[in-house]
Amino acid sequence: MLQNKLNVANLNTPIHKLEQLSQALGKSIYIKRDDYTGTEISGNKVRKLEYTIQYVLDNGYDTVITTGAITSNHARATAALCAQYNIECHLVLRGELEAYEGNLFLGAMLGAHLHVIEPEASREKAMEALYKTLESQGKTPFSIPVGASDWIGTHGYVHAFEEILKQEEELNIAFDSINVAVGSGGTYAGLWYGNEQHQTTKQITGYAVDQSTDAFHKKVTEIIQQLDDSISDFDTVHINDAYIGLGYGQATDEELQFYIDIAQLEGIILDPTYTGKAFKGLVEEIKAGRYDNQEYILFIHTGGLQGYTEETRRRLQRMLPEISETK
Amino acid sequence: MLQNKLNVANLNTPIHKLEQLSQALGKSIYIKRDDYTGTEISGNKVRKLEYTIQYVLDNGYDTVITTGAITSNHARATAALCAQYNIECHLVLRGELEAYEGNLFLGAMLGAHLHVIEPEASREKAMEALYKTLESQGKTPFSIPVGASDWIGTHGYVHAFEEILKQEEELNIAFDSINVAVGSGGTYAGLWYGNEQHQTTKQITGYAVDQSTDAFHKKVTEIIQQLDDSISDFDTVHINDAYIGLGYGQATDEELQFYIDIAQLEGIILDPTYTGKAFKGLVEEIKAGRYDNQEYILFIHTGGLQGYTEETRRRLQRMLPEISETK
Repeated sequence: MLQNKLNVANLNTPIHKLEQLSQALGKSIYIKRDDYTGTEISGNKVRKLEYTIQYVLDNGYDTVITTGAITSNHARATAALCAQYNIECHLVLRGELEAYEGNLFLGAMLGAHLHVIEPEASREKAMEALYKTLESQGKTPFSIPVGASDWIGTHGYVHAFEEILKQEEELNIAFDSINVAVGSGGTYAGLWYGNEQHQTTKQITGYAVDQSTDAFHKKVTEIIQQLDDSISDFDTVHINDAYIGLGYGQATDEELQFYIDIAQLEGIILDPTYTGKAFKGLVEEIKAGRYDNQEYILFIHTGGLQGYTEETRRRLQRMLPEISETK
Repeated sequence: MLQNKLNVANLNTPIHKLEQLSQALGKSIYIKRDDYTGTEISGNKVRKLEYTIQYVLDNGYDTVITTGAITSNHARATAALCAQYNIECHLVLRGELEAYEGNLFLGAMLGAHLHVIEPEASREKAMEALYKTLESQGKTPFSIPVGASDWIGTHGYVHAFEEILKQEEELNIAFDSINVAVGSGGTYAGLWYGNEQHQTTKQITGYAVDQSTDAFHKKVTEIIQQLDDSISDFDTVHINDAYIGLGYGQATDEELQFYIDIAQLEGIILDPTYTGKAFKGLVEEIKAGRYDNQEYILFIHTGGLQGYTEETRRRLQRMLPEISETK
């Protein structure tokens, strides 16, 4: 395990009970606010990047390349840390270039070089080509995979798991499960490995937001084996892919209505790409009785407020009451 | 002084040194991240609202009315707390109804009733009319002034001042000044009163973002006298109105360039309405020698990331490097 990391995230992130929802569902549902880790660096990614950027600094790299969707939270957090630590930053962003807003806008403000590629293009190939170009310019680039989901970044959620154990003592609670969105696997892998190391009875449940259960099982296995090749039993890896809906970053009206309902019930904004789908999955699984043997249920809010695009906001506007205007 | 308050803000907010800027200006410049108080409730307003909403709950009100600009951070934070505590929320928002984004969008998601009035209309008159309507419907409304800047809300920054004193001990630093944007006066008033109570030698400096030094001197005096009528000497109230520029919420190109520069130097996004103008004021005053007798300078980042409107982002896009697109 790596010992060195930056200390830039605002930790520990608080855990609090969702009072209304707990009452409605007859369970004790708690939320851990990993969206509170910062502003420019807000969300789960900075926990991974604390290890990754430290590794970059410790090993003499002067340039970072990473990738994600146009709306990538990870890309924006990487740009913020690169600005702070004076590292040249290149972001390979996949998708349609539409409004200049959200994470794309923030990445530009933070001085990252933005490279937009088509929705069907290979991120890995684009990163490789960029790597060669930067190397030929005399730079020493380091490529961070999507979501910083590799053996380095996943340290951040091993650490987060240990943070949760400490908070359980303070709260005098033992969570029966920890539930989280799975977009690239690194957050899940870190939590699962932390649980494995501490041998608790907790269930670590992931809700996939793009790829299948099988694909993520493979990805999580790979990350953990890079971290610790003594692990061979992955039977308790539990990733549910039943709530992907229309696919990555796409929302149904029913999902959007759920985000409105939670915002108005608890004062919490879920994001439409990660936490929204995962939290809806959790609530539906609880309703279906699949958490009947559990009482204390923890969900990690991994951030993503910048993910509400112009198009999604316009759809939500039609579902929300009209604004009254006095002329 | 009121003793009861909600405990919803993520406190203490961290203080860290701005390494690059400190070196460039030959001072030790620190930032306190009050933009880290939460997500839906992020920014300085929640410190005030912890007292205000507690007061609403303690005194049997069932409905809240408050006001601000269309882009109001205070209105959005109020909406979030009203959702969480099941209080009906009405926001009187002044300005042109343009894009459905930022704080306006979040307020709607959080279930607030939005009442938009024209840019030149009186917020107070609109609030009074709404108050009567709600009362006639059998509700018990409570009106929170703009920015929650009254004797109740200002408690939040008396508390914040005491938080800073504790953090000084941990950091082994004594700040010579605390610097903050002044938009409605309550944040400044709380810091000033805290300083007065603790009799430190710190200078509390406000940078006005809309009204004049004289207008804010009067406002701050009023708030403090409501809180404590034994105070009569306000000579150390120090509010600089030289950096308002084009007026509330309006930015010059030079200001926008400054926000780009700080983002790329420190990884910190200033907002174009409050912290941007105030921080630019601070930097210019340091350069002009007006902080020559100070070494440790603290700036409070009061939030406002949602304040970048479509129009401002479009202007910034023209000032930032072009995005490279691979087709």
